[in-house]
Amino acid sequence: MLGLMQSPPLLISSLIDFAARHHGDGEIVSRRVEGDIHRYTWADVHKRAKQVANALEATQVKPGERVGSLAWNGYRHLELYFGVSGAERVLHTINPRLLPEQIAWIVNHAEDQIVCFDTTFLPIVQGIHSHCPGVRQWVALCDADKLPQDTGIPNLVSYETWIGAQSTDYDWPVFDENTASSMCYTSGTTGNPKAALYSHRSTVLHAYAAAMPDVMCLSARDAVLPVVPMFHVNAWGIPYSAAMTGCKLVFPGPAMDGKSIYELMEAEGVTFAAGVPTVWQMLLSHMGPNKLRFGTLQRTVIGGSAAPPAMINTFRDQYGVDVLHAWGMTEMSPLGTLCTLKEKHRKLPPEEQLKLRLKQGRAICGVDMKIVDADGKELPWGTGVSGDLHVRGSWVVASYFKAEGGDPLVDGWFPTGDVATIDADGFMQITDRSKDVIKSGGEWISSIDIENVAMAHPAVAMAACVGMFHPKWDERPIVVVVKKPGQEVTREELLAFYEGKVAKWQTPDDVVFVDAIPLGATGKMLKTKLREQLKEYKLPSL
Amino acid sequence: MLGLMQSPPLLISSLIDFAARHHGDGEIVSRRVEGDIHRYTWADVHKRAKQVANALEATQVKPGERVGSLAWNGYRHLELYFGVSGAERVLHTINPRLLPEQIAWIVNHAEDQIVCFDTTFLPIVQGIHSHCPGVRQWVALCDADKLPQDTGIPNLVSYETWIGAQSTDYDWPVFDENTASSMCYTSGTTGNPKAALYSHRSTVLHAYAAAMPDVMCLSARDAVLPVVPMFHVNAWGIPYSAAMTGCKLVFPGPAMDGKSIYELMEAEGVTFAAGVPTVWQMLLSHMGPNKLRFGTLQRTVIGGSAAPPAMINTFRDQYGVDVLHAWGMTEMSPLGTLCTLKEKHRKLPPEEQLKLRLKQGRAICGVDMKIVDADGKELPWGTGVSGDLHVRGSWVVASYFKAEGGDPLVDGWFPTGDVATIDADGFMQITDRSKDVIKSGGEWISSIDIENVAMAHPAVAMAACVGMFHPKWDERPIVVVVKKPGQEVTREELLAFYEGKVAKWQTPDDVVFVDAIPLGATGKMLKTKLREQLKEYKLPSL
Repeated sequence: MLGLMQSPPLLISSLIDFAARHHGDGEIVSRRVEGDIHRYTWADVHKRAKQVANALEATQVKPGERVGSLAWNGYRHLELYFGVSGAERVLHTINPRLLPEQIAWIVNHAEDQIVCFDTTFLPIVQGIHSHCPGVRQWVALCDADKLPQDTGIPNLVSYETWIGAQSTDYDWPVFDENTASSMCYTSGTTGNPKAALYSHRSTVLHAYAAAMPDVMCLSARDAVLPVVPMFHVNAWGIPYSAAMTGCKLVFPGPAMDGKSIYELMEAEGVTFAAGVPTVWQMLLSHMGPNKLRFGTLQRTVIGGSAAPPAMINTFRDQYGVDVLHAWGMTEMSPLGTLCTLKEKHRKLPPEEQLKLRLKQGRAICGVDMKIVDADGKELPWGTGVSGDLHVRGSWVVASYFKAEGGDPLVDGWFPTGDVATIDADGFMQITDRSKDVIKSGGEWISSIDIENVAMAHPAVAMAACVGMFHPKWDERPIVVVVKKPGQEVTREELLAFYEGKVAKWQTPDDVVFVDAIPLGATGKMLKTKLREQLKEYKLPSL
Repeated sequence: MLGLMQSPPLLISSLIDFAARHHGDGEIVSRRVEGDIHRYTWADVHKRAKQVANALEATQVKPGERVGSLAWNGYRHLELYFGVSGAERVLHTINPRLLPEQIAWIVNHAEDQIVCFDTTFLPIVQGIHSHCPGVRQWVALCDADKLPQDTGIPNLVSYETWIGAQSTDYDWPVFDENTASSMCYTSGTTGNPKAALYSHRSTVLHAYAAAMPDVMCLSARDAVLPVVPMFHVNAWGIPYSAAMTGCKLVFPGPAMDGKSIYELMEAEGVTFAAGVPTVWQMLLSHMGPNKLRFGTLQRTVIGGSAAPPAMINTFRDQYGVDVLHAWGMTEMSPLGTLCTLKEKHRKLPPEEQLKLRLKQGRAICGVDMKIVDADGKELPWGTGVSGDLHVRGSWVVASYFKAEGGDPLVDGWFPTGDVATIDADGFMQITDRSKDVIKSGGEWISSIDIENVAMAHPAVAMAACVGMFHPKWDERPIVVVVKKPGQEVTREELLAFYEGKVAKWQTPDDVVFVDAIPLGATGKMLKTKLREQLKEYKLPSL
């Protein structure tokens, strides 16, 4: 027997309608590419998103077709989020840090009809437009008088010209909530990129979950700074949760340096910020020497990769800012876990609490997770044994766009490629990427554990642990280290630094000092490339 | 084009699975009918809900059929919430404060196959069982050795006997998320009761929304005391949001007096409580004279009817407890609005903030509201003009069970029967029930405003404002007053008390002192009955 409740489809357009109607004067503040600060309201976003929708009709982009964006976090990007998806077109956010040939490849694979780009990325567009014949319109996200001239790009128009003549009246279409809303390609280090194709339903459910107190805890009293890029899994879904809760949004644009981020936070009363560890490292490096304090910041979510313990401690102890680890994936919209403590943990001594905070956290209701052994058998929790992490739920991919890579699911679960433990309270901790784990003498060594010890040394700026072939043990770990400018540490000192911190057999066999570790487009270390660079390397014991 | 995300149905069973898996040791504490305290965990609820599901199979209750409950807030009622709905049967929560003949009527109208009841309500069951031939099993919510003897009720079994022999293994069925999960009859003061039939989808979406920071703000660090009954619109959905967030639940059972509630709060570290004003009045009346303080309570949501300003102030100023007005209806699952302030309001002086806190609050994302004039035309917000309040959204009824009362919607909106204003920031304030509003000389007088003034007088325990026929003005307000024990106030003193608080033409024409005002089953004043009692009354001016 069916219930007798209204069941309107969960659509992204309803979020921006809600924000405009109930939080119309809520502020959106953006640092623009031009360097100045732009401010307007949720009511303005609503109107201009409708102009975007009308511009899509005028440009004859059909429902379901893709619109690409190559853009920083800013108000025009936000308008595309709601205007493109609301009009039943699919927003394809493109990572501008990819190589131009990769960008051209995914623009063509996605069959983008229009690509909107910040003028920062003009050189990329100039390089690729002739390889992307399917793009019928290139839109520069700028005022008409800022449109770059003599670019050689045909069909180039400024965003303000593109939407300017359009009406702010538009009736959002009503359609199946499982309709595609946006897409994001994974920055896979092997094989062709694959795209997650989010739906309106998955996006709205994720937005509810992300706003909950044990996740991002967003309210109408927050001013939120998403440093995590809008081209990177929808800025962790913050734009949608923000519309749902009416919080103030503060966009950093291209200025991600510590000084710019700090000044924006202070000027706009930011209470909550979200980003990857590298950005926070830049922020702390700016604040420390300048003896700066946060005026309003209460909490920050760190994801993308694990935050070093020292960073968590600095935020908490020196600045009184609550640091929450998050974990997710492009394939998870992205939020899977958040590390908020339970009531019983609040009585633990600080060092015990820190141990918990270093974990990636608890599953958010709407997703579930498990760890499995090599045979795919579910492993019990709370034993300290790690296994391959699998997830499923309302905002987890079922397959990739154009069925790239075939069916990714195993018994309905998505294998994350991460290796993790889950403790008795459900706190998950990534111990490695399954392809990075070091198998030594039948035991697994977590490359992350080894890196964290090195990172705790005052002279170490970056550390990567990789496994090297060993005829007896199969693999032995070594640690590749970039030193901080002006700091010194010897191989022997660093190896001695491991004493008492990891088991003897887990201690790296060697330290290799390098000038730089290769990084991917999202700032993650590219260990495949690092291994390639080390292909002539031999362990000292051999 | 459809997205490519997993889209598992939103089912209530997934909430209890989540709670057991991720918050297995989270506590559920109940004061039992027997007076003792019972405590166990979410893992236990999960196991016993599965025993309930197996008992339903054994009793041959078919999917979609109804299971009634006549019960206080307690752990066995919680097991029915998840076991009955999870097994695709429909939980019909019955208000035991209704008259026995009303209860029999709705048990028969709902076609309840089983009715589970707390032994407190044995006399009701003894009175009605012979009028409810469709009930195949009466289940007393007690241990086997507490089963009342010689009751005259055929097919009576104790709950523990009923579920005790059943396995804790049960595979929840997977079905359409729009399937009915539970039902609740409105305590309509006229006509036959009508039932809202909630769905799994509406319930899960409501649970996400209710947990958000601007609504009930529930986390794994909360201990929640739902004083609002589980027979009254699912205790405002708290059991579902609690499973979703893993918070501790504390159930008061039948002991709603101030002393019992206070002691339970303090013993169990309650951080959040929800209930109707009458219960909080009893609590404050106990605490004041005994000079008691709250140890852990941080916030309370007050709904059901408006809280008097004095109560809000007492909680905030004397006890440091944040009081949040909520508004909803049986037809809304029930949450429609919550009165949490926006950032800009935090800078207002306390008296301005209080004015806002007296409103019913802002719409929760997932529902929308509007006010309309007599012609059904939408009225603008922020003008101070009131209109009929209409709502729609993901947890609002589309129609009633068995199509009672026909199609309730007007252009897709549900008319609430309330009259309200909505300010420029979207804060809604109920000014009256549409049938209680007093029409005097072409203007509307809010009966609630008139009552609030009287309630602020130290000698007044309860006040009801009703409109009396007047040949010139159509209606004129009078106020019916119950004095506090041992307190005195004269007609003239009370009328003088209105000076400067309402406009002269809104001041009541008369005060009528009575010993009691008739109350309905949910504690609301029954003005229809009051008007009947006053049918011989004449205004002094006539």
